[in-house]
Parts: sequence; C-alpha cells; structure tokens
Amino acid sequence: MLAFESDADTARTDTAEDRLEALGRALFAPTGSNGVHARTALFETAIEALSTLITAHREADTEVLRFAPVMSRHQVEKSGYLHGFPHLLGCVCGLQGDEAEIHAAVGRFNGGEDWIDALRATDLVLTPAACYPLYPLAAARGAVPAGALKFDVESYCFRREATHEIDRFQAFRMREFVCMGSPRQAFDFRSRWLARAQAIADALALPYRIAPASDPFFGRAAKLIAQSQVEQSLKFEMLIAVRSAAQPTACMSFNCHRDHFASTWGLHTEDGEVAHTACVAFGMDRLALALFATHGLDLARWPQRTRQSLAL
Amino acid sequence: MLAFESDADTARTDTAEDRLEALGRALFAPTGSNGVHARTALFETAIEALSTLITAHREADTEVLRFAPVMSRHQVEKSGYLHGFPHLLGCVCGLQGDEAEIHAAVGRFNGGEDWIDALRATDLVLTPAACYPLYPLAAARGAVPAGALKFDVESYCFRREATHEIDRFQAFRMREFVCMGSPRQAFDFRSRWLARAQAIADALALPYRIAPASDPFFGRAAKLIAQSQVEQSLKFEMLIAVRSAAQPTACMSFNCHRDHFASTWGLHTEDGEVAHTACVAFGMDRLALALFATHGLDLARWPQRTRQSLAL
Repeated sequence: MLAFESDADTARTDTAEDRLEALGRALFAPTGSNGVHARTALFETAIEALSTLITAHREADTEVLRFAPVMSRHQVEKSGYLHGFPHLLGCVCGLQGDEAEIHAAVGRFNGGEDWIDALRATDLVLTPAACYPLYPLAAARGAVPAGALKFDVESYCFRREATHEIDRFQAFRMREFVCMGSPRQAFDFRSRWLARAQAIADALALPYRIAPASDPFFGRAAKLIAQSQVEQSLKFEMLIAVRSAAQPTACMSFNCHRDHFASTWGLHTEDGEVAHTACVAFGMDRLALALFATHGLDLARWPQRTRQSLAL
Repeated sequence: MLAFESDADTARTDTAEDRLEALGRALFAPTGSNGVHARTALFETAIEALSTLITAHREADTEVLRFAPVMSRHQVEKSGYLHGFPHLLGCVCGLQGDEAEIHAAVGRFNGGEDWIDALRATDLVLTPAACYPLYPLAAARGAVPAGALKFDVESYCFRREATHEIDRFQAFRMREFVCMGSPRQAFDFRSRWLARAQAIADALALPYRIAPASDPFFGRAAKLIAQSQVEQSLKFEMLIAVRSAAQPTACMSFNCHRDHFASTWGLHTEDGEVAHTACVAFGMDRLALALFATHGLDLARWPQRTRQSLAL
C-alpha cells in the first residue's frame, strides 16, 4: 500500500501478473467470453476434494437440495434481488413468437443482420445465489419446527460482473448451508459456522481474515444500505489473498438475513412468529483458486496438512 | 400399442401416472417453474454414482473440461444452433443501460409495472449442449494430431422446451465424450461408444433399445433435414422406458457430425484435411430418472448387478 511505486514495486507487480496468468492457463481453458471459464481436470480435482471436505462438516439433520442454474423470475423479483442488484441479474430471453416470427428473426441473422430485437423475456432468470430458490420452497411446506430447519444447497450462479479479474467469475458454483428458525437459532447457526469455517481454512493451511462486509448494492442509495448492513453486523466474509494480499478475495460469506426472506415468503415458526434465516456460502471456484494461488499448481507439493484434509 | 383402450388399459394409465407422480415427489422438490427441478439427495446419489461409472469407461488420453451453463452467443450463432433450433435457445439478457436507465426500470417494477422491456441481449447464451464450447476452443489450439483428440466434457444445459413431462427438463446436466480426427477415427469412436454404452446399460440392468434418431429441428424444413439425418445414420439414441414403454426416453445419443463443426471452426488434421467430429452424450438427469423408474425408489432393493456397477 505504498503511495509511490519504485522500480522494485513495478517488478513485483509484473511477477504477480505473470503468476496470475500462469494460474489461469493451468486451471482454465479460454472460452471467448470474459469471466466464463472452462475448468480443467486439475481445477476440478480441487473442487471435488473441497466439496467432500465441506460435506464432512455438515451438521446433522440437514436436508440436501441441488438447484438448477435457472430459477423463477417472479421469485427473484419478489425476493428483492432486482431492487438491490438489477445490474447483476441475468434474465433468460428467447424467441417466443409464432413460427413466422421466429423464421423472420433467423432470416435476419442469416442475412447478417441483428436478430436479438426479437428476444422476449421468459419466466426464468439465472440463479443469482444458491439459496434464493430455497425460501419459497421451504415456506410452501408450512411452519418451521421448534428444532429449526437446516439445508445444504448448491447451484451454478450467475452475476453480470462489470470487471473480469481472475477471481471474478460471471458463472460460478456456490455451496450454502442455510438455517431457518428463531432469531437465536439463526444467529447461533451463523456463529457456529464462523468458527467452523476458520477451522476449515486452518486445515487447508489457507491464511485468511474475517471481515465485516456488505453486498454490492446498486446505485445512489448503495452506500447507505451497505453501511447499515455493516453496522448491524449482518454480513462477514472470509478474505483470502488470491490476486494480492492488498486486494484479498471473499471466498466465504456468513449472513444473517433477519426476517427478510421469511417475511417475503410467509415463513413462520411453530409459535406463529416470523422466522429468521441465516446462511454460510462457499464460493467453490474462489476457494479452489485460493488453494492454487496459495500452494501452487503441483498438488503433490501442497502442505501435508492441506493434502490430508482434502484426501489428496 | 393397442388401437383401442379397454377399461383395464385406463386403469393401467392411472397407475402409471401415480407412479410418475411418486417418482417426481421423491426425486425433485418443486421450484415454481415447469421443467426446472430442485434435485433431492436421493437423486444426486444416483447422479454421482453414474458419473463415476461413466468415468471408469473413459478411454485413455482423454482431456477433461467442465463448462459453465453460459457460453458465447457468437459461438452458438456461428455453430448453426440458432439456425437449427431457434425455439430452444435461451439468451442471457440484462439491464445494461446507465444508472438512470436501470433506476427507471427498477422504478417501474417497484410501481407494479413491467420492467422487462429494458432488458438487452448480452454476449452470452445458455449452453445448449455440453460440446458446443469445445470446437472453437480446440480449433484455436491448431491441427488435430494423427492420433486424434478425445475430450470428456460436461455442462448444465438449457433448452426452452414447450412441454414439461417428467423426463423433459429445461435445465439438465449433459456429459459427453467427443472425438476429433479423420472421418474413420470419428466414425470408429462412435462405434466403440455404441458398444460400450450398451455394456453400461446392461451393467445397470436397464432395458433399452438403440434407434436411429434426428435432432428437433425447427420449422417447415425440419422434417426434410431430420429425414436426411436418419438416412445418413448420423444419430442414434439409446431409448429407455421412463414415462412408458410406448414413449421411451432418449437417455444417450451417439452422433457423427461429419465436418459440420470442424468446417465452421477451421479444425484440420495434421495433413491439412478438414477434421470430422463425433460425440456420445449422456443425459445424466434422464439416466438417473431411468434408474429410479426401472428399479424403484429404494436403492437397497435395486438389482445386485446395478448396485455393484454403481458401487452403492
């Protein structure tokens, strides 16, 4: 964090860039789209080992659900995502007219013209976070029992990011554990996971820092909402050096939603109170990237502790 | 395949519907969107076991790549997918204007009005088949060596299906093995997989039928193109009874593309000829569904042979 760059600093920067380029070349194949990667076998080895490790830490009585990379647009709108993050949302559009209309659009394309004006929004969006489809699903089942509800969910997620650093994916896998229950149950769940996640990072020999955080809200009011989120300690992130120690990468997040999702979907506890929800989210691709950035590209040379934890 | 329905047949139909409903209830949780499912732990157990089994049959010298559920729109357009299947393609659209424009769209939504007119097409579409991103990627690397190239790819795929039977997913996982080489190499690769896939189905105790097939082309010319595809034996499918024996489900396909993708992307063999490509595709969700439809919902009561093959 120097105010002026010396020659030595410039050299260091070049080396860091070279290192990131080498990481990218070994872990991803180019796809012609920024922030969209083809994952290599090496990268997937880390993803699979991480998945198994996270599963081993799952609490008892947790229901497993795996979501698709698309979900109901109505649910995402109603959840407040469009309001908070309209710039990140991807909507599934298609050619939905009659046969003549679709033929006309394809004809325009064949003639070298643009056809995309004929696209119309469907009822689907790209899933923005793995737990968004869960709240309406759970609420439809009825009241949360006294012992709380716990879920293990995963989804490929999409965010229309404006920049494309190596740790900023447009399409990425998010694993989450989610709790629904009383305010105390939700808060304690997050506290347990804050401790457990640090034990996982230690077991992987990943240096990290836990920091208060806020979501990337859109527009003029963003700063105020984010500030209030930090003041209320609603979000923490686990930061790990991937690109650099000065700009660490959020690889996990620990979130108290209070009654946001439960109010939206009418999720109540058995005694009729509005439930609280909380989640811990693992950015699987970022965690795998953090492992390679920290320990190098040769799995055989990763620390003994890391290899043991990942059964490599 | 009776021409007339007797009372007994009607009863059988009801039972079949009940059976499919019970399957759906046990394997999927409702998401509020037709053809988009949340997968349960039971379903994922079969998916993971199938993945491992398919990997065990992978040929030597096969490169593994895992693609994202979104890919370059340009690549899909150029590959001919828009021309052949415009009705199935999902395009990623977003709010891409300046801050004022996005605020205006969100404001319309908050006011109970429609905001989707403000969506604009991005450079991404939903991946329609797992091998589409592969051809430009491989072509960019240069000529195909004399020994041919083999790939193992997988992706969540999307198709905007018009109907939503239990075996017709809008979002589904497709695993593929792909070969690029001489016409003989590509043809032999498909022949080997036609044999190997039948051995896999036998090992799973899944009754099946291999049938000539065609792709679901769009519009007036569809019938003609499909007929030519069948006449040239370019596509075979493995059909398994999921909904019914009379309407079996295509769970795998075996495809010779001839020089279609190679010509499009400039993929040549070392001696300068346009390459041929072929692929075998596993519909992972359909295969898992076929296992449950055939052997029931209780893994412990699946045939010994099936359990052994899947290491269950």
